[in-house]
Amino acid sequence: MGNDKLFLLRAVEIAGNGIQNGGGPFGAVVSKDGKIISEAYNRVVLTSDPTAHAEILAIRQAASFLKSHDLGDCTLYSSCEPCPMCLGAIYWAGIKKVVYSCDRTDAEGAGFSDKLIYEEIMLDPANRKITFLRMTDTGGKEVFRKWDELENKIPY
Amino acid sequence: MGNDKLFLLRAVEIAGNGIQNGGGPFGAVVSKDGKIISEAYNRVVLTSDPTAHAEILAIRQAASFLKSHDLGDCTLYSSCEPCPMCLGAIYWAGIKKVVYSCDRTDAEGAGFSDKLIYEEIMLDPANRKITFLRMTDTGGKEVFRKWDELENKIPY
Repeated sequence: MGNDKLFLLRAVEIAGNGIQNGGGPFGAVVSKDGKIISEAYNRVVLTSDPTAHAEILAIRQAASFLKSHDLGDCTLYSSCEPCPMCLGAIYWAGIKKVVYSCDRTDAEGAGFSDKLIYEEIMLDPANRKITFLRMTDTGGKEVFRKWDELENKIPY
Repeated sequence: MGNDKLFLLRAVEIAGNGIQNGGGPFGAVVSKDGKIISEAYNRVVLTSDPTAHAEILAIRQAASFLKSHDLGDCTLYSSCEPCPMCLGAIYWAGIKKVVYSCDRTDAEGAGFSDKLIYEEIMLDPANRKITFLRMTDTGGKEVFRKWDELENKIPY
């Protein structure tokens, strides 16, 4: 059995552990150079943290382990297709490969909002269920101007 | 001046503080009942955490303060339109209003990938720059089946 299947089976196993330990039914694993470097299950309710999805926690752990925000050489395995939040994190981390078992429609069947959030994110902010109010006269662009002028900054 | 503008100006001020303190040029504030309950600037490079965007940190702090993953009565203020990761977090947290200054195009001009990630997220997984590999014969659905049968679970 190849590593992709082996590590994905581990992510699914961790999702099952999540249920047993009061977490949500999602598990994720990050690998580098053929070895698992982090594992996590969903802890949203356990830790009162709406961002504590399995993938976010596994990415944060892997970055902490590697002492870098750049996980460009890593692969992420997840028991379910990452939601938009986790997918965004995957892009910011520079991860180039994702292996998964269930998808957003399966997650919807289990009572989760992944599919709804994908649909909302594609809309113009003005057309979403959440109210989006833009106030351009508040100096935001001036901050980017200062950033632009800053020397020796580390891109991310 | 109304609270919306006042709190957004504070988020922009925090973004400026971020630059001065080695953080990224983004600031966010969460308010509840007319008061600010959390503030943060981007700490991705400072903490080697690709998920440490201003909005994510402000949401995590607010949830920790309220001891709940549900921020349904809160408003988020951000110096820039939230990226897809942060927007996902906003939906998961149940936040119903977002006030912001710059948008994804301004962020792109400052060298950030927000707009690119929005474009990628809208694509079918098979068409993205990141490799997405689905393996359905790995037991993922069985975990959701167990979750479905679980009694007394807390929805999130």
